Amino acid sequence: MNPNRKKLAQIELSKIKEKANIARGAILKMTTLANSGHPGGSMSTVDFLLTLYHLINIDPKKPKWEERDRVIISHGHIAPAVYATLGLLDFFPLDDAISQFRLAGSIYEGHVEPDVAGVEWASGNLGQGLSAGVGFALGCRQQEIKNHIFVLMGDGEQQKGQISEARRFAKKYNLNNITAFVDYNKLQICGDINKVMPQNILENYISDGWDVIEIDGHNFTEIQDAIFDAVNNENPTLILAHTVMGKGISFMENDEKYHGSTISAEKLDLALKELGLENNLIKYKKLREEFKPHNADHNNKISQQKDFNLNIGNPIIYTEKTDNRSAWGNAIADLVNRNEKLEMRNSLAVFDCDLQGSVKTNKFAEILPENFYESGIMEHHTAVCAGAMSKENIQIFFADFGVFGVDETYNQHRLNDINNTNLKVITTHVGLDVGEDGKTHQCIDYLGVMKSLYHFKTIIPADPNQTDRIIRYISKKYGNFLIPMGRSKLEIIKDTEGNIFFDENYKFEYGKADLLRKGKEAALFVMGTLTNRALEIADRLYDLGISLQVWNVSCPLNLDKEALKKAAKTGIIFTYEDHNVNTGLGNSIADKLMQLGLSCEFYKFGVEDYALSGKSEDVFKYCRLDVDSVVNRILEKIS
Amino acid sequence: MNPNRKKLAQIELSKIKEKANIARGAILKMTTLANSGHPGGSMSTVDFLLTLYHLINIDPKKPKWEERDRVIISHGHIAPAVYATLGLLDFFPLDDAISQFRLAGSIYEGHVEPDVAGVEWASGNLGQGLSAGVGFALGCRQQEIKNHIFVLMGDGEQQKGQISEARRFAKKYNLNNITAFVDYNKLQICGDINKVMPQNILENYISDGWDVIEIDGHNFTEIQDAIFDAVNNENPTLILAHTVMGKGISFMENDEKYHGSTISAEKLDLALKELGLENNLIKYKKLREEFKPHNADHNNKISQQKDFNLNIGNPIIYTEKTDNRSAWGNAIADLVNRNEKLEMRNSLAVFDCDLQGSVKTNKFAEILPENFYESGIMEHHTAVCAGAMSKENIQIFFADFGVFGVDETYNQHRLNDINNTNLKVITTHVGLDVGEDGKTHQCIDYLGVMKSLYHFKTIIPADPNQTDRIIRYISKKYGNFLIPMGRSKLEIIKDTEGNIFFDENYKFEYGKADLLRKGKEAALFVMGTLTNRALEIADRLYDLGISLQVWNVSCPLNLDKEALKKAAKTGIIFTYEDHNVNTGLGNSIADKLMQLGLSCEFYKFGVEDYALSGKSEDVFKYCRLDVDSVVNRILEKIS
Repeated sequence: MNPNRKKLAQIELSKIKEKANIARGAILKMTTLANSGHPGGSMSTVDFLLTLYHLINIDPKKPKWEERDRVIISHGHIAPAVYATLGLLDFFPLDDAISQFRLAGSIYEGHVEPDVAGVEWASGNLGQGLSAGVGFALGCRQQEIKNHIFVLMGDGEQQKGQISEARRFAKKYNLNNITAFVDYNKLQICGDINKVMPQNILENYISDGWDVIEIDGHNFTEIQDAIFDAVNNENPTLILAHTVMGKGISFMENDEKYHGSTISAEKLDLALKELGLENNLIKYKKLREEFKPHNADHNNKISQQKDFNLNIGNPIIYTEKTDNRSAWGNAIADLVNRNEKLEMRNSLAVFDCDLQGSVKTNKFAEILPENFYESGIMEHHTAVCAGAMSKENIQIFFADFGVFGVDETYNQHRLNDINNTNLKVITTHVGLDVGEDGKTHQCIDYLGVMKSLYHFKTIIPADPNQTDRIIRYISKKYGNFLIPMGRSKLEIIKDTEGNIFFDENYKFEYGKADLLRKGKEAALFVMGTLTNRALEIADRLYDLGISLQVWNVSCPLNLDKEALKKAAKTGIIFTYEDHNVNTGLGNSIADKLMQLGLSCEFYKFGVEDYALSGKSEDVFKYCRLDVDSVVNRILEKIS
Repeated sequence: MNPNRKKLAQIELSKIKEKANIARGAILKMTTLANSGHPGGSMSTVDFLLTLYHLINIDPKKPKWEERDRVIISHGHIAPAVYATLGLLDFFPLDDAISQFRLAGSIYEGHVEPDVAGVEWASGNLGQGLSAGVGFALGCRQQEIKNHIFVLMGDGEQQKGQISEARRFAKKYNLNNITAFVDYNKLQICGDINKVMPQNILENYISDGWDVIEIDGHNFTEIQDAIFDAVNNENPTLILAHTVMGKGISFMENDEKYHGSTISAEKLDLALKELGLENNLIKYKKLREEFKPHNADHNNKISQQKDFNLNIGNPIIYTEKTDNRSAWGNAIADLVNRNEKLEMRNSLAVFDCDLQGSVKTNKFAEILPENFYESGIMEHHTAVCAGAMSKENIQIFFADFGVFGVDETYNQHRLNDINNTNLKVITTHVGLDVGEDGKTHQCIDYLGVMKSLYHFKTIIPADPNQTDRIIRYISKKYGNFLIPMGRSKLEIIKDTEGNIFFDENYKFEYGKADLLRKGKEAALFVMGTLTNRALEIADRLYDLGISLQVWNVSCPLNLDKEALKKAAKTGIIFTYEDHNVNTGLGNSIADKLMQLGLSCEFYKFGVEDYALSGKSEDVFKYCRLDVDSVVNRILEKIS
C-alpha cells in the first residue's frame, strides 16, 4: 500500500459500509446453505477486511501480480468473510463462493486455501498466521518488493505462544512492512475470552516492542485511519479492533454459539430482512445442485513448479573422513559464491535457531549475512516463517537439530506441505550419533513422522560426497525437502576396488538406491550414518564366506522397486538403521515388499526403545546395532 | 517450603558458598572427564540451586516423599550443576555422578532424567519446563499437598512461545505454589541473547500478570531473600537472577563457548587451583573405567506401576446410533459419579482446549468443575502440563481435536513418553469424518506419528459400546494412552444375528482384534469410524457370493498375530481406513506380516493425498473410500 495514497472520503467509506452489508448477507447465505461454517467471526472481521481491500495495492485480474500487498488470514475459519470480500472486489464471481462453499470438489473450502484467487496462505490451525505474514514480509523485503503485508488474526488464537515468537522475530528484523490486526470480539468457542483464558493482548504486544493502535472495528473512519497510521509507522504495529461477534444481526450479536454454528433457513430470512437484503437462497441452492465438482490435485500443482535458475556449480569431492554437516555447509557456501548476481543471491536464504556452529550455517552467515536469519530458540515460528518466505521464489534452507527441526515442528511442516511451500529443512544430529545428549536429543523418529506428509521428500546422504550432490540437487528444485544427517565424521564410501563411490560422475537421482556391494546370500538395506558400518559388516561376512548385497537407500519414502526385487531374490532381506525400528527404513521396506508381493525372509535391525546417554559407539552396542552385534545377528538368521 | 521457616544466618550462607565452590569443582571434573556436557550454564545456576536446596522441604533419604517440594529443571543441560547439588545434599554419592556422567548405562545422563534421586522431570527440549512445573503445582494442589514447586530455566529458552502459555495458565489458576527462576547470564549458544533474539523477559512476565524479583544470582543473601519473598507472594513469581556464564573461573566467565564445551585436562588443573581445590581427576578416571553399566529398561519401569483404585462401574450399553465422543463424555461423567470419595475424585482431572462441546468434556466440567481445567487455545502448554500433573497419581484426560492433540503436540507427548507419564489423550474429529473443515482439520496421520512413541498405547474404538469399555479400561491403568474417535454418530456394531457385538459380556483386552464377520475369500482389516462401512461392504459382497472376513483392529500398534494368521490363510488381505495410506493401519499390518513371514496378496485402501473440504460422505467418494468404491476395488482384486 502506498503510504502517501489519498484517504478515502466519507462518501466512499459509506459505500464500503453498504458493501459490508451485502457481504454479511453473503456470509449468512453461504453458511446456511452449506449448513456448516463460522459466521460469527466472519461478521466481526468483515468491516475491516473490506476497508483494507479498498486501500491496498491489488489487481483482481492479476491476483499473483508480484508487487501486490499480501493479506494473510490466520483465523482461516473466517473464510466466508474472505470469500465475500474477494467476491465483491471481483476476484471471482461472488455467486460461485456463495453456492459452492464447503462443497467437495470446489475451491471454496471451509478454511481459506490459496486455490482461491486473492488467498495467499492456507490456514486452519490457529496461531501460525503471524509467522507466515512475517515470512512473506521478509521474503518481499529480500526480493526488493515495495509492498505491505497485512495479517488478520482472531483474539482467541492470541493465546498461542507461537505468536509471541513471531512478534520478537519481526521486531528483531525491524519489519516495517507488516501490520497485524486482531478481531477483538472477546468471544471464543467456549465463551468469554476473559474467562476461558484471561490475557492482556495489548500489553503482550507492547512487551515485545510492537506498537498498538486500538480502534472500534466497526467504525470505518477509525479503521482507515488505523491502517494509514500502521503503514506509516516504522515499527511493527498491531491494530487491536474492538468488535462484536455476529455484528449486524440482532439475534447473533455477542453470542459465542455463532463462532461455529450456522443459522437456520427461517432465521436467515429474518437476518436478511434486518440487512434489508432480498432472500434469494433458492437461486444458490439451485447453483449448488448443478455444480460440477473437479478434483484438486495437489501433485499436479507441485509438478507445475519450475526449477530454480541457480548455478549449482561443480561437485566438491571429499577424499578424507568428513562430517555430512560440513559438506552441507560447504555446499551452501559454494552456491553463494557461484551465484554472484544480486537476483540470484536474493533467491537464497538460510534460517538458524541458535545452532550456527553445530548445524554449519556459519559459513553462509559469514559470506551472505544479509540473507541469513538467526531466529533464536523459536522453532515453531521459524518453521512457518521460513515456509511462507519460500513461497516468494526463494530457496530457503532451515537448518536445525532433528528433534527441533522435525519433532517439535511437525505440525508447522504439515501446514507448509498443505501450502505447497518450497522449504529445504536440513536436520543434523539425527540418529544415535548424538549419543551423550541422550533420549531427548536422539532424533530416531524423523522418518516415521515425515512419512505422513505427502509431499515432503526426505533424502538421507550416506557420506559427505553424496551430501554435496544432494544439496546441489535440491537447490535447483521447487518443493519441500528434508535432508537429515548425523553428527560424526564419516569415512568416504568406496566401491570394492577402493574407488570413491559418489565421485564426480555420480549424479543424484531421486528414488534410486545405490548398490554398494553385490551379494547372493542375503541383502541389507541401510542409509545415512550407518552405511559405513554396513560395508564393514559386509566385509566381515565376506571373510566368513558370505556375500552380502548392500543397498544404500537415500530416498526411503520413494523406494527403488528394482532394488527390492533384486534383494528379495537372495531370499533374505535385512534392514539396518539407528532409527525407531517400528517406523523407520525397515517399516517402509516391509510395507513396499507386501505391496509388490515380494516374499522373502525379513528382519529389521533398529532402535527398540528410547536409548541411553553415552558415547555413540557405546549406545550402538546397547542397542545391538554395532558392527559385531549385527554380524552375529545376521549369522544367526542365515544359518 | 514452609513460608514461616527461619532464614539462614549469614554464617550458614557462607557455608553454602563454600559448597558452591566444591560444586563448581565437581561440574568441571565431570564434564572434563566425560569430554562432553555443559559447564557454562551449570556454573551460573549453581549458587541459586544450592541455596534453594538448603531452604526447601526435602528428605534425601526419601526422595519420593509425597510432601516434598518439587524442583523442575527446564534447561536439562545444566545436569552437572544438578548432580553436584544433589550429591552434596546426599541424595547419592557425589563421586558416582562425577565418575559416571554421560557414561552409557549410568543414570547420570547428559540431560537430567528422573532415574536420578531428586530429579522430578526429564528435560532437554527447551521451553517446556514451566509447563511441567505448572502441572506439578496443579497436581499437588488437587491432591491437597501443601508444598511449593520451583522451576529453573535458562534465559535463551525464554524465547520459546510455550512459556507464555504456561504463564497465562498459572495466572488464570492463581497458582501461588509455584516460583520460577531464570538464570539470566545473557549468553546463548550463538552469543549475546540481545543479539541472537532480543527479548524483554521482565516485561513479558509482567504483561502476563506475574510478579518479578530481580536479583544478583551470585549473591547468597539476595537469593535467599528472593526465595522467601516469592514463596510468600500470593501471585506467581519469577526470580530473574542476573548471573555470569562460567562464573567462578576467570577464563570461562562470560564466554558463550562454555555453554556446550568442556575445558581440557590442563585447563581443569588451572581452574581447580582458582577454586582452591585438589585435582583428583585420576581417582574419578579410575572409577569411570571400573564402572559396571546397567541397562535402564523403560518397559520395566512402566510395568511396575500399579493400577488405579477407581471404581469403573458397569458398562453403558448403547442400542441407538451414537457418536463415540458422547460415549466417552458419558463414561467419564459416570466415573465421577461412581467415585464419590474425595480422594478418588482428586485422582481424576480433565483438560480442555476451548472445545468443550465438541470434545464432550462439558459433562465432566459440570459435575466436577474443581477438577476441570480449561486451557484455552494453548495446546503445547496443555500437553506438557497435563503430562506432568499425571505423575502426581492423577488420571488425566486431555481431550482435543486430533490435529491439535497429536499433530501440534507430538514433541510434547514424546517428552511425556520419555517421562513415563500417565496421560490419557482423547482425540475427536479424526479421519475424514470432519469433512467440511478441510485438510488442516482432517487428522489422518495420528497413527503414523504416534507409532514413533514407544510407550503410548493407541486404542481406536469402533462404536459407542466399545468406546465405553475402553474408557473404563484405561481409567484403571497407569500409562500413556491415545483414544482417537471421529465426529459422526455411528451405528451399533452387531453380529450376523443382529446381537450387539460389544455387549455387557464384552471385555476389552489390549491387543486383541475382533472377528466381526467370518469369511473365506479374503480378509479385511478396519478400525474406528469405518467399521460400520466395512460390515456394509461384507454384506454387499456376501450378496454376490463372496464371504469377507472382517476384523476390527482397536489396537493397531499391538497387532493380533492370530488374527493376521487367520486372515493370511484366505490368501488376500485388504486394509481399509480413512487415514494416510502410507502410515496408518495398512502400513502396520504390512510390516507385521513381513515380520511374521506371512505371505498373501495385500492391498491398502486409505487416503492418498490431502483431501477436500465437503460433506464427509462426499469426501469419502473422492478418496474412493465409500462403500461402493471399496466393493468395486475388492471385486477387481478378487476376480
